[in-house]
Amino acid sequence: MSIKSLIRTIPDYPKKGIMFRDITTLFADAEGLREVVDSLAGEFQDQNIDVIAGIEARGFIVGPAVALALGVGFVPIRKKGKLPAKTISVEYDLEYGSDIVEIHLDAIKPGQRVLILDDLIATGGTALAAIELVKKAGGIPVCCGFIIDLPDLGGADRIRAAGIPVFNLVEFEGD
Amino acid sequence: MSIKSLIRTIPDYPKKGIMFRDITTLFADAEGLREVVDSLAGEFQDQNIDVIAGIEARGFIVGPAVALALGVGFVPIRKKGKLPAKTISVEYDLEYGSDIVEIHLDAIKPGQRVLILDDLIATGGTALAAIELVKKAGGIPVCCGFIIDLPDLGGADRIRAAGIPVFNLVEFEGD
Repeated sequence: MSIKSLIRTIPDYPKKGIMFRDITTLFADAEGLREVVDSLAGEFQDQNIDVIAGIEARGFIVGPAVALALGVGFVPIRKKGKLPAKTISVEYDLEYGSDIVEIHLDAIKPGQRVLILDDLIATGGTALAAIELVKKAGGIPVCCGFIIDLPDLGGADRIRAAGIPVFNLVEFEGD
Repeated sequence: MSIKSLIRTIPDYPKKGIMFRDITTLFADAEGLREVVDSLAGEFQDQNIDVIAGIEARGFIVGPAVALALGVGFVPIRKKGKLPAKTISVEYDLEYGSDIVEIHLDAIKPGQRVLILDDLIATGGTALAAIELVKKAGGIPVCCGFIIDLPDLGGADRIRAAGIPVFNLVEFEGD
């Protein structure tokens, strides 16, 4: 089974016209889970990554397993108010309103090379905020890695325009 | 470094009198992350686990890496409204009010042996709800595994009283 074929598509979720790409079916499959982690770890094994930052909540599912494969640690990027120690925050725009992501002030040591991981890149707002967080924390954002890219939404292009490489395992066009 | 020594304690979080046990410092440490995953996988490798269910959000950090080590899949148990396909729900009481956890209706195949993982067991409300979810989904809850037990809060005893074994790596008394 390919990674793409294990991803379930749910039409009209969370609202009409959206084709939601559901990775729970991919992770529920033992071979799918292994393929995702091996593919991401294989891509980054020669890039001297020091730490992986995963974005809440689905970035938590993929991040630590890849960190383990690379022999590095994992740090969470969470929504506002979820991290217990001192944090750094970045606010970013949503379609309607805004949101805030945070990282622990001491999560990243100055100069560490950070791989940012999440399940999916759409418009890229959260990933760009995560890049800014890593920089504010003193880290070097080396790359953003995703399982899925929705290229029509332009997020990966926005990240590349900000000077950060993007890597993804599969893409769905027409979303 | 031992697992316990890598867990940071934050006094008076989220409110006065609570000693919050912060696992982000444990996962940020490459050896700590490996030790946690190896210890949990080692404990369960001979228990014929078919799938691991991890509880949002910190159960997502530990669950998939252990699933990978055991060669099984991972399924998420999430708060209400976060899973995109058809779900089963269980409501449970909190200190004030109640909460709801959900699992995808098709996440577990009938008769599958399920290991439920989370970072910490306190009063056990969420874990008991997770056990009920697994049963409603047709699975067999084999064990609940945690990194941390706070035995003074009685959660592990409540789970054992419900007939499900509990395993944890470290405990903090006096909490």
